[in-house]
Amino acid sequence: MKTNPGRFFEDYRLGETIRHATPRTVTTGDVALYTALYGPRFAVQSSDAFAQALGYPKSPLDDLLTFHVVFGKTVPDISLNALANLGYAEGGFRRPVYPGETLSTVSEVIGLKESSNRQTGVVYVRSTGSDAEGETVLSYCRWVLVRKRDPEAAIAEEHVPSFAKVVDPADLAGALPPLDVSAYDLDLAGSPHRFSDYAVGEKIDHVDGMTVEEAEHQIATRLYQNTAKVHFDALSGKETRFGRRLIYGGHVISLARALSFNGLANAFALAGINAGRHVAPLFAGDTVYAWSEVLDTAETGRGDVGLLRLRTVATKNQPCAAHPGREGDGYHPSVILDLDYWAFMPK
Amino acid sequence: MKTNPGRFFEDYRLGETIRHATPRTVTTGDVALYTALYGPRFAVQSSDAFAQALGYPKSPLDDLLTFHVVFGKTVPDISLNALANLGYAEGGFRRPVYPGETLSTVSEVIGLKESSNRQTGVVYVRSTGSDAEGETVLSYCRWVLVRKRDPEAAIAEEHVPSFAKVVDPADLAGALPPLDVSAYDLDLAGSPHRFSDYAVGEKIDHVDGMTVEEAEHQIATRLYQNTAKVHFDALSGKETRFGRRLIYGGHVISLARALSFNGLANAFALAGINAGRHVAPLFAGDTVYAWSEVLDTAETGRGDVGLLRLRTVATKNQPCAAHPGREGDGYHPSVILDLDYWAFMPK
Amino acid sequence: MKTNPGRFFEDYRLGETIRHATPRTVTTGDVALYTALYGPRFAVQSSDAFAQALGYPKSPLDDLLTFHVVFGKTVPDISLNALANLGYAEGGFRRPVYPGETLSTVSEVIGLKESSNRQTGVVYVRSTGSDAEGETVLSYCRWVLVRKRDPEAAIAEEHVPSFAKVVDPADLAGALPPLDVSAYDLDLAGSPHRFSDYAVGEKIDHVDGMTVEEAEHQIATRLYQNTAKVHFDALSGKETRFGRRLIYGGHVISLARALSFNGLANAFALAGINAGRHVAPLFAGDTVYAWSEVLDTAETGRGDVGLLRLRTVATKNQPCAAHPGREGDGYHPSVILDLDYWAFMPK
Repeated sequence: MKTNPGRFFEDYRLGETIRHATPRTVTTGDVALYTALYGPRFAVQSSDAFAQALGYPKSPLDDLLTFHVVFGKTVPDISLNALANLGYAEGGFRRPVYPGETLSTVSEVIGLKESSNRQTGVVYVRSTGSDAEGETVLSYCRWVLVRKRDPEAAIAEEHVPSFAKVVDPADLAGALPPLDVSAYDLDLAGSPHRFSDYAVGEKIDHVDGMTVEEAEHQIATRLYQNTAKVHFDALSGKETRFGRRLIYGGHVISLARALSFNGLANAFALAGINAGRHVAPLFAGDTVYAWSEVLDTAETGRGDVGLLRLRTVATKNQPCAAHPGREGDGYHPSVILDLDYWAFMPK
Repeated sequence: MKTNPGRFFEDYRLGETIRHATPRTVTTGDVALYTALYGPRFAVQSSDAFAQALGYPKSPLDDLLTFHVVFGKTVPDISLNALANLGYAEGGFRRPVYPGETLSTVSEVIGLKESSNRQTGVVYVRSTGSDAEGETVLSYCRWVLVRKRDPEAAIAEEHVPSFAKVVDPADLAGALPPLDVSAYDLDLAGSPHRFSDYAVGEKIDHVDGMTVEEAEHQIATRLYQNTAKVHFDALSGKETRFGRRLIYGGHVISLARALSFNGLANAFALAGINAGRHVAPLFAGDTVYAWSEVLDTAETGRGDVGLLRLRTVATKNQPCAAHPGREGDGYHPSVILDLDYWAFMPK
Repeated sequence: MKTNPGRFFEDYRLGETIRHATPRTVTTGDVALYTALYGPRFAVQSSDAFAQALGYPKSPLDDLLTFHVVFGKTVPDISLNALANLGYAEGGFRRPVYPGETLSTVSEVIGLKESSNRQTGVVYVRSTGSDAEGETVLSYCRWVLVRKRDPEAAIAEEHVPSFAKVVDPADLAGALPPLDVSAYDLDLAGSPHRFSDYAVGEKIDHVDGMTVEEAEHQIATRLYQNTAKVHFDALSGKETRFGRRLIYGGHVISLARALSFNGLANAFALAGINAGRHVAPLFAGDTVYAWSEVLDTAETGRGDVGLLRLRTVATKNQPCAAHPGREGDGYHPSVILDLDYWAFMPK
């Protein structure tokens, strides 16, 4: 069998390491496409001159472009037969990534839990993206619900890992080079609000909306070399419970992050992902909105930047002035993403 | 309030200078996207080898890519609450821009005129795009109709600027480096027609048509970091008088310019914009056609190139063999753009 | 007449050479777009580090990106008035092409055959793509059915060329630099199957499907500066026998090649095109699938790589588990492409 059928739940072994295919050199071409697909306006990632004034060698990639490239490689080995992408935890961006660098990904199977009906199981992995020299640039945990090939197949060893509810800010402080924030030009950055201007509990409606087209999410998802057929095959999509193509969840994360510029323009770099959940699917033709809440702030021993712990919620076809979010045990029906993360902001 | 609500008419002051956010390093990635979105075939912008033979260090950006990047930055401060983009004048491209350069934009408020109903007013700005060292690469005037927040608000000082009907060719001659036009290969350029082959009054139907998709104009407009919600939010678009998303007017300019290659292949660089008007809106699914008229020709004291003053008219869903344009006080119903500009052509 | 009406059949002369317009510098921006449009995952073209370990200076372009750029230039001179693209033969990729190189194309008219009804004729050309120094990077033959302007026009000289059924592998062996295949990492490449693992007669269903959107094929076709109006003008498309825009045949070739990664991941470079036929048209909204058959294998005197002769068949709206292909004198109604080519694979 020359084609990859994808792994089924019983094919994973606890502790196993999987080297994923297709290393990827990221370029300014990828950066242009990322800008064109989401419209981010963070000055550090947009202007070499702005980045250099702060102390970067040049503009780094948007952290989520790095995330998607690292994530995309895991799909053929982890989620080709997945029924659902259940969550993220313990994500850390270790250093900026620059155009010209080559990224590859390795995943360790850190948990396995068969479902009670034995039809499926949850696979927990820690995926690590590295540069060509093997230095880690990003690591995160993800768990997915995967089909079993044979419901009767026995599972050698099961384990449910526990994750930190919040990534320790002290572990994230080294992700940026030392920055000369006196050169951080607030006019050019697009907002007068610095770290000290944000208060725990503050909620921000990001106001703008973005309607998604089939061509856009397909172009994005292929850019990341993410091969999950649910995103690309409308014919087989007709046979699914959704009856159509499903948009890659990471596309929603990037849309929400780009929309969040309007209110969080100076949260210019991601530091860590505490928790993330794709609450509901997004389809072409839907319009995405977002709002954020400041969950916490943290000093990191750095004089240049602080960390904001943010929760960004994305909705579909529902503006966010009323901050739609959790309702009882579930969510407001418009909610599609609930993401809890740390971001750097200049002091 | 952390989000940008946009300025209303009474928020502007005559003579005020606005430094716009998000400087932008343009790259060969942007160039590839620009080519993919419009299909321009001008040899100077397409081939480093062709450009270098003439005396350029490498291929410059398409002048309209520069225009859109410079323009996009002004949107959050100038046209977020605009009802209409009324016109352009006194545009000048000061020098070629190359991949790797960083562009930013400053606007000066040069005119303010409240409408008689006091609900709106016209804001006139001169916007100047500069490189990282502050050297001007492009400047142009634009006026937009902007809502008032409060119809009763008083306007401190009003002024209606007057614009030159035509940019003086002598002011544009320095926009190109000295070129060795003996190296300008007409086969590779795609047309045997030089400067002297065009006569005032000549009309050219550019023949080809281009149908626009929602994904295409959204990808383009985000590439320029233009944030006007009318282009992106189909849900709120339903509540507008058009009932749908509106295509960025600059997208039409670029389509018309790319279509104009067929008949004006050697008009390889823009020099100035005399006047421009978006006569009617364009929507996804419409097909754009264009025709041009030679309004004037000018010598500039250069032996290598001359200037053609061109009027390019774009239509929707109407081929241009009959040159649809002004009719009585208005326009043929198919007309969407009427642009009057200077372009360089080899002698 | 300043616009290009395209040539009609009686405008060609046997033996004539046509220098096509618009040389093109290919960049990493084009590479990013190519990845985003088709989703190829071949490691050599994706990772500079992977390519360099083998002995390449950096990642070469996907060979089909080179093909499309070389092909696109021929359209204004060869196929603007074409009714059908009939076939390809004797294609050879002469060396890898790298970002930063400038490509241009020359075609020689090698055959002319008027149709019996005198309304049309077949034009046969050999098109050669070269770098800025004039070194050939690709050549191939193509024949198209072209309208006559005047059915009564006489044809000076006719000739029907004969083509090799298969390109001699010995002529293709030099297309790659010597490679250190001990550095070819099968995990990173995405498949454990080397040259010796493929047997003549083996058939591989590539499983995955890709639905095509109007925006996608238009973006791709403009990227290649291919100007054939049938791909872009929906309004005039309504008057054609298809009633709509037609997708560029090369778009199908690239989709099929990208899909073929799943089963042929190590067939990392194209060497030659033996024969190709666009069996039926593709339209937006259709879903493309593909399968391949190993027609032959060839040693080339190189210790590092061998050549597989592959036939890849693409279908629309029909998965390929049953290998739909020729049926009687024709094809299964789902078939849109039948391509016979040589590809390199590490030993």
